[in-house]
Amino acid sequence: MSTEDAFVDMALRAWKLNVDRTGKFFSSLTEEQLLHEIAPGKNRLMYLWGHLTAVSDALIPLLGFGARLHPELDAMFISSPDRAVVQTLSGAELKDIWNKINEALWLGFSKLSASDWLAKHTTVSDEDFVREPHRNRYTILLARTSHLAYHFGQAILTRSR
Amino acid sequence: MSTEDAFVDMALRAWKLNVDRTGKFFSSLTEEQLLHEIAPGKNRLMYLWGHLTAVSDALIPLLGFGARLHPELDAMFISSPDRAVVQTLSGAELKDIWNKINEALWLGFSKLSASDWLAKHTTVSDEDFVREPHRNRYTILLARTSHLAYHFGQAILTRSR
Repeated sequence: MSTEDAFVDMALRAWKLNVDRTGKFFSSLTEEQLLHEIAPGKNRLMYLWGHLTAVSDALIPLLGFGARLHPELDAMFISSPDRAVVQTLSGAELKDIWNKINEALWLGFSKLSASDWLAKHTTVSDEDFVREPHRNRYTILLARTSHLAYHFGQAILTRSR
Repeated sequence: MSTEDAFVDMALRAWKLNVDRTGKFFSSLTEEQLLHEIAPGKNRLMYLWGHLTAVSDALIPLLGFGARLHPELDAMFISSPDRAVVQTLSGAELKDIWNKINEALWLGFSKLSASDWLAKHTTVSDEDFVREPHRNRYTILLARTSHLAYHFGQAILTRSR
């Protein structure tokens, strides 16, 4: 493996580790448990999972892999706070969506070369990219990995309660 | 900047972003606020901050930068759960320790080349490293960045309460 490929491989391992532990945690919960709040008056687990799923779905066009699979998630889990919109999705349905989105992302990731990772993502202009070359796919991957960890840390607070 | 250096630069940016937002959050709290729990019956903010500080201090020898600055933190914030040990450290003292450790780490990071980042960290044996070459400094950096985000996501739950 080349040095460049090694850096890509490590970031993908970190991403996968976070996706796997997050998916495993939420997938193990009952429909009733998914309605528990992470802390009094805070978001419910179902909302957090939906939020992470919607953000991952948005990575598909952002990284240039194609059209979103589930743009309808944004109205429920991004543009509205928890409880603002009547939520009809079940945990079982969300689990299926989460898995399909993560499979699509992994397939997209696997086709990128090291230089593809350093290329700009789709919402940076050419001019901005000249000034800020770190606004590339790799930085997005690192940021979304932190985002997963941030919310997983919150979700895990409900364990053994 | 070479391609390899670009990958290092991006991981360091992600680390710094997480250190900065975490330090800014905890540093803004009063001594009284630092004793608030992140959720009922869960760790107090002071414990989380101490825990993150101790884990970062342990990076100094792990990455080969020298001896720990504050090994005494482990008894309070790693080997014991919150409230198990009488805690005499103030928030002001911890802030100073947090800043000094992060300065030492940043200095160490800045001296590493891309190939230094791919070299094994100090607790992997040569034999294990042959089999698992991703057990290097860079992977540690990515993992600790996720660890910061994980606990920052918990700490932020106390905001605007």
